[in-house]
Order: sequence, then C-alpha cells, then structure tokens
Amino acid sequence: MEELNTLHCEACRADAPKVSDEELKTLLAKIPDWIPQVRDNIMQLEREYSFKNFVEALAFTNKIAELAESEGHHPVLLTEWGKVTVTWWTHKIKGLHRNDFIMAAKTDSYYN
Amino acid sequence: MEELNTLHCEACRADAPKVSDEELKTLLAKIPDWIPQVRDNIMQLEREYSFKNFVEALAFTNKIAELAESEGHHPVLLTEWGKVTVTWWTHKIKGLHRNDFIMAAKTDSYYN
Repeated sequence: MEELNTLHCEACRADAPKVSDEELKTLLAKIPDWIPQVRDNIMQLEREYSFKNFVEALAFTNKIAELAESEGHHPVLLTEWGKVTVTWWTHKIKGLHRNDFIMAAKTDSYYN
Repeated sequence: MEELNTLHCEACRADAPKVSDEELKTLLAKIPDWIPQVRDNIMQLEREYSFKNFVEALAFTNKIAELAESEGHHPVLLTEWGKVTVTWWTHKIKGLHRNDFIMAAKTDSYYN
C-alpha cells in the first residue's frame, strides 16, 4: 500500500462508501497519533499538535488550511495558545472516507 | 461607560477579580450576540460567526489572532467551513475578567 501522505483526495459523493471495519484498522495503523472519535454518531479522526506559543499554533492552522483548500477537503481547526486540534471527517457520508486518512497523514507531514 | 471596543486589555494577575454578577449583567448587555458558557466550572464568552466559505472563515480567524497578539490576550478559535466560533475567558483567573468583554466587543468590530 502506498504512503498515505503521497496520495490525493478523490471526489467524494454522498453514496461513496465509508471505510469498512477492516480498512479502518489498517488505515488507523498508518496514522498512529490520530484518535478516532465518535460525535453525534459520526466517526471522526482527531489529533492535537503542540506549539511554543499562539503564533506558531496559528501558523500551523494556516498551513493545514492551505492544504485543505488545495485538496478541496476541509477539517475543523481548533487554534489556541500552544495547541492546534485538527479533526477530519467527510460531511457528505457522515463518517470516515479514505480521503480523511490521506488528509490526516498529510497533516502529520506538516508538523515538525 | 465607554464603548468596550475602544478599550484595551489591562495586565491580568492571578489575583485579579472576576467580574461580579452585577458587572456581568451590564457587560453582557453590551455584547448581546455573545453567549456565556460554563465549561469545567469556568465561565466563558462564546460567539459563532458565519462566512461564505472556508477561506473567509480563515481570514477572520487570522484577523482575530492578530488582535489577540496585539492585546496579549488569546481566545480559542474554532475554524471550519463557513464558520468561526470564538471563545474568550481569562485562564489566570479561571473565569471572566473585564478584558474578555473588551475582546469580545473588539472581535465583533472585525466582523462585517
């Protein structure tokens, strides 16, 4: 299987399949720092990143926002002093698509 | 009483007083779009702002971040597609200081 962070999001339709339980296990193993969360019955991927201050946290938020725009897939970004929490899921399918794992892996690659 | 958005944050110490119940009422009336929230026993001020897309939401996040840096007082900024949720409170006193109301009023002044 290719490295997730080298892949790109594919167009996602409302009838696209969510990742299966088996895929979930394989994909989660590739992004070990991400925690699957279920909110309002929707599975999401979440990771907290630490920074030295507010400005560095905001710079990361902006990098991930740029990535999101370029891939046409957008996360929720919680920016606070010294911390950014990134949450990925696919609104159209109310759950996790393979795209979300690709985006999580790409997000990791922006964190030094 | 002066307009809140023309004031600036004063340095806040851990022993600074939280706003009293009476002040709370007066100050909340000046920022009617903000909702007081209690989380983990800490009172916070919160407001959601709507935007046309992700890029406009992010631009607002950046404006408020710049304001925060200039005043030395930082919010939590939740950025998502078409929406930014701003939360102000004063960590040092685990609650609301007059500074938070000043920052809420200033945040409003950046929203067109």
